[in-house]
Amino acid sequence: MIIVLKPGTTRSEVKEFSSWIESINNVKVNAWYGEHSIVLGLLGDSAAVDIESISAQRIVESVKRVQEPYKKANRKFHPADTVIDLGGGSILGGGKLALIAGPCSVESEEQIIDVAKHVKSSGAAFLRGGAFKPRTSPYAFQGLRASGLELLRHAREKTGLPIVTEIMSPGHIVLFEDVDIIQVGARNMQNFELLKELGKVNKPILLKRGLANTIEELLMSAEYIMAAGNEQVILCERGIRTFETMTRNTLDISAVPLLKSLTHLPVVVDPSHAVGVSTLVEPLAFAAVAAGADGLIIEVHNDPPHAMSDGAQSLTPQQFKSLASRIVEIAPVFGKEVSHRADE
Amino acid sequence: MIIVLKPGTTRSEVKEFSSWIESINNVKVNAWYGEHSIVLGLLGDSAAVDIESISAQRIVESVKRVQEPYKKANRKFHPADTVIDLGGGSILGGGKLALIAGPCSVESEEQIIDVAKHVKSSGAAFLRGGAFKPRTSPYAFQGLRASGLELLRHAREKTGLPIVTEIMSPGHIVLFEDVDIIQVGARNMQNFELLKELGKVNKPILLKRGLANTIEELLMSAEYIMAAGNEQVILCERGIRTFETMTRNTLDISAVPLLKSLTHLPVVVDPSHAVGVSTLVEPLAFAAVAAGADGLIIEVHNDPPHAMSDGAQSLTPQQFKSLASRIVEIAPVFGKEVSHRADE
Amino acid sequence: MIIVLKPGTTRSEVKEFSSWIESINNVKVNAWYGEHSIVLGLLGDSAAVDIESISAQRIVESVKRVQEPYKKANRKFHPADTVIDLGGGSILGGGKLALIAGPCSVESEEQIIDVAKHVKSSGAAFLRGGAFKPRTSPYAFQGLRASGLELLRHAREKTGLPIVTEIMSPGHIVLFEDVDIIQVGARNMQNFELLKELGKVNKPILLKRGLANTIEELLMSAEYIMAAGNEQVILCERGIRTFETMTRNTLDISAVPLLKSLTHLPVVVDPSHAVGVSTLVEPLAFAAVAAGADGLIIEVHNDPPHAMSDGAQSLTPQQFKSLASRIVEIAPVFGKEVSHRADE
Amino acid sequence: MIIVLKPGTTRSEVKEFSSWIESINNVKVNAWYGEHSIVLGLLGDSAAVDIESISAQRIVESVKRVQEPYKKANRKFHPADTVIDLGGGSILGGGKLALIAGPCSVESEEQIIDVAKHVKSSGAAFLRGGAFKPRTSPYAFQGLRASGLELLRHAREKTGLPIVTEIMSPGHIVLFEDVDIIQVGARNMQNFELLKELGKVNKPILLKRGLANTIEELLMSAEYIMAAGNEQVILCERGIRTFETMTRNTLDISAVPLLKSLTHLPVVVDPSHAVGVSTLVEPLAFAAVAAGADGLIIEVHNDPPHAMSDGAQSLTPQQFKSLASRIVEIAPVFGKEVSHRADE
Repeated sequence: MIIVLKPGTTRSEVKEFSSWIESINNVKVNAWYGEHSIVLGLLGDSAAVDIESISAQRIVESVKRVQEPYKKANRKFHPADTVIDLGGGSILGGGKLALIAGPCSVESEEQIIDVAKHVKSSGAAFLRGGAFKPRTSPYAFQGLRASGLELLRHAREKTGLPIVTEIMSPGHIVLFEDVDIIQVGARNMQNFELLKELGKVNKPILLKRGLANTIEELLMSAEYIMAAGNEQVILCERGIRTFETMTRNTLDISAVPLLKSLTHLPVVVDPSHAVGVSTLVEPLAFAAVAAGADGLIIEVHNDPPHAMSDGAQSLTPQQFKSLASRIVEIAPVFGKEVSHRADE
Repeated sequence: MIIVLKPGTTRSEVKEFSSWIESINNVKVNAWYGEHSIVLGLLGDSAAVDIESISAQRIVESVKRVQEPYKKANRKFHPADTVIDLGGGSILGGGKLALIAGPCSVESEEQIIDVAKHVKSSGAAFLRGGAFKPRTSPYAFQGLRASGLELLRHAREKTGLPIVTEIMSPGHIVLFEDVDIIQVGARNMQNFELLKELGKVNKPILLKRGLANTIEELLMSAEYIMAAGNEQVILCERGIRTFETMTRNTLDISAVPLLKSLTHLPVVVDPSHAVGVSTLVEPLAFAAVAAGADGLIIEVHNDPPHAMSDGAQSLTPQQFKSLASRIVEIAPVFGKEVSHRADE
Repeated sequence: MIIVLKPGTTRSEVKEFSSWIESINNVKVNAWYGEHSIVLGLLGDSAAVDIESISAQRIVESVKRVQEPYKKANRKFHPADTVIDLGGGSILGGGKLALIAGPCSVESEEQIIDVAKHVKSSGAAFLRGGAFKPRTSPYAFQGLRASGLELLRHAREKTGLPIVTEIMSPGHIVLFEDVDIIQVGARNMQNFELLKELGKVNKPILLKRGLANTIEELLMSAEYIMAAGNEQVILCERGIRTFETMTRNTLDISAVPLLKSLTHLPVVVDPSHAVGVSTLVEPLAFAAVAAGADGLIIEVHNDPPHAMSDGAQSLTPQQFKSLASRIVEIAPVFGKEVSHRADE
Repeated sequence: MIIVLKPGTTRSEVKEFSSWIESINNVKVNAWYGEHSIVLGLLGDSAAVDIESISAQRIVESVKRVQEPYKKANRKFHPADTVIDLGGGSILGGGKLALIAGPCSVESEEQIIDVAKHVKSSGAAFLRGGAFKPRTSPYAFQGLRASGLELLRHAREKTGLPIVTEIMSPGHIVLFEDVDIIQVGARNMQNFELLKELGKVNKPILLKRGLANTIEELLMSAEYIMAAGNEQVILCERGIRTFETMTRNTLDISAVPLLKSLTHLPVVVDPSHAVGVSTLVEPLAFAAVAAGADGLIIEVHNDPPHAMSDGAQSLTPQQFKSLASRIVEIAPVFGKEVSHRADE
């Protein structure tokens, strides 16, 4: 960490300030006296140094981190890719690209089993479906909740596909014991109490980037889960909020190669939520694979116009089949192989 | 709700589509045939109509809401201002402007009581202080948690000031029974499970706008609390995230008069969190009052450089005293009177 | 155009308002009376109707366009792709993907000729290079200006590559007579006086999207050039400004397939300016091709660390060669063929 | 300037790099060797050092400016407020708050003279009106252009009010010789060729902040004008583009006190363009004065519903009269006095 002091700071103030920093952190402070400014450099583990309390000092002009504030998620310290392997060929990361597909909301047993069979036969390695639904309006469909989880389990029994579904509250963790991958939605990316509890769970967490969150904040939220003991985290880019209104959100495609360089965690892309229009899902899925994604989350509904949520962005099973077969062709061009179920 | 259909839609498709909408919603559909387009108008209560499932229809070009999707928060249906009155002169709304002051984090009994006494004597009507702290990094100070709430109660005993403090999880509600106003932070504005639970609580909820949330979404989150039974909601503008980096966030001052026209709920502004720099707190507090705010949340710390969080934006007790006395002068210019404790 | 009137508007007000609209525009107004609202529909050519003056009416609640406000750029009216063909194999659009490469700034005869030869031999179909440079600071290098154009001509003589270079003022058009493609930079996307003048020029214009401009505004700026007579416009996505600071800008990859569906004009992507970091240029170039781009603008410098501008994002000639050979492989996977010079 | 080098950089690389920087800039480089990183500090005038070419070095991890890159606009070097005084009481800055009022577009002699008389009698010290109009659509009204300037002169003759009007191209400067203050619109804030030419003009320039431009970029654009010789620059905050769509733009009220601390130049606010809705103009005008603005630009039209542009945000003369009389009361509360014409 580099601290620039205000012009006119005296040597005794520098000394007192340096001692104070050293007394509350495990670092050593070096001062460098310039013509117009004085710069302090902190040696040692400055990840825990509170940048805000340093900035609050009267004599401080500005502060700059040199080290990344995340450790467990940092590729510098863990160069090898983290791979999520749920058995039976459902693998994500480390050269394997997984298709995670299914409806926005679980609506009925018939619907979820029908979609599950279709996406499996087209090549999906995981089934997604929402039981607990975060909706902007309290008057909108809130999901089937616990019984939705039950229906997902039925679909898994019928198809073998591991299930991925979203959690909205720490109090619900007990209901998710039989879920394969727990998803944290964009609106809960900084629900830190939830993250801490998920750190105690022994299953992969799919963490979506918040609409207004930076890439560094996404990594810090992953760090919350990892610091609490669970190192199986999958990161998901699903669009950020910008001034552009033609698409629901703006897919930040640069986040994919950036994250792949900064962290060893796998990175998936959700083009369906990012754009909110089904006709753009295919080109964005291609772009995600080209940029280096380890997986794709694709919304598929057997009857999009009558979907209870997000129908506008859902593909039909036929459209998904066509997309999946193209992804199988494209992935190897970018050094990836599409995961496929051994039981297919 | 107005629905524009795609050119070339046939009359029988229009008929079938209209019947479908009427069958699942309590509305009547009228069709208007133009030269290049067909427009449908929905009569009745279209607030519950799911705009996304309408948009997903193959024949739909675009959809436009005419009615606001919020009801209980809507000033059209409740013209009179909601006033929060906690007794003893701690009033917010309806012409009364309240100062809510205190440290970012509760750090010790001595600290919180010292700050509480100072801010009370300067004119604050409420004491704020964080016990549960949402922090970007898992390695940063997370607040004193339950014991912080205990210290806030002590400070209330000593000063009489009602206490405002942030909740981070539905599971903690039991700990907040003795809190006067429960705050929902920006990161939890769309933590819908938390909002639903707070709708069952019988005390005011101070709801902060999320960093990437629109004004309409803020009102919809208030609606969640109100729809569940708790109509005592205070809205808070505290800055949104934009490309500008000189301030921590961008205070959306226009939100204040806009919210005052759209809703009957009181609106407060938190300039401290919006800018993140103490020297800008005063001019922004003035601007907030001029724009029509019903209250101000001001961070005050007895020793800002050694604050455990957010020191850079905290005022000293002396700076707060000066600010508060200016606000007392300024408020009447804009038709407001500053609340003050009867026991002062 | 659909106009929603305020509740309580009388029939005689509707009549008077409708007549006024019809009197100043070439449209016919139809009124539809709902329970809570009155909706007007405009038939005929409403592209010229001023949405702002309609919104200003006391009785108007809101206005919604149904037709796109752009005509000449609209694919609905010109389904076939516009192709830019400068001869000798330098083709862009209509299934041909072109690589446009070269340094950010033209710095010397030796530099530009050296880079031109390298990029040509690697497969570039166009040479780019800045002579007039828009720089944030008046103290930064402003480009070689007229003599830079001269050096670009020399490089064209030596290599045959058509040259693409940026204009900053209508007064300079006379200097650009011998340039092959005139570029309008992001900061000048809404320099309407410049656009009008470029509409009178008989050569292709490469129009970059502004940092805060919507996709519709980009199309309207193209429309300025086209409406003035020049229909050879190339659109360029080069990143928009968002809250994310790890990349210089946020490449809006969704803009590529969206633009391809909305307009017949070719769409190119400039990953170098979008991210500002050379290591991310390759994955983003791949993503752009996967999303359907008709061309790529890649900054290449013979000595990036000593470049007079934008060195951080420039590739070396060797890196470009590797990228170009990959693009030749990748393009056919997405239905494109890389343009190549006949004289190679 | 502080440069952080990558771990593993050798002492000889540091030496060679330092010598290179010193050879092309008027600075001295000091190196400080830490445990995990090496930090270089540049002494002397680093404003001209190109941060991008430094970042491009293979051995550089990151770069941080310590000095502001603007000099002539910097309050550190010119502590006293710049005051714009056009005689007859039309003063802006240095404790004087000026009202600049008039229609968005000049439409006819009758209209501009009518509005001018009204706003003068209500207390405006300057008349604004657009002759050259930047419009998103080429099919929208583009202004009366040169004849609009002529009409503004007539209005000045009748009222004595100095005129403020927007320029869109360097080629038009000759037409603006008789204008009192030349305005640069938001879309041209980084039209550097225009800024350079305005630096040679001997009259005040009112420079509006661009929709996606940072506060520092606004100051750098002012620096362009000042560096070319014209130090009479007025800065204008008029809203930035964010995700919020209820207002046309988001007024960045924090920019006002920030700019007042960073620069000696006067700062005005244009609430009309920022929000685009006339009912919000008054509270935002109050907020601007409370935050420390030196002036307000208010759109006033004698017949807003029939205005040829921006009617939705225009006040009627009566509404302006009411606003102006409130501003006269409010300004002294914030240490300002409203300028008024001696000839009133």
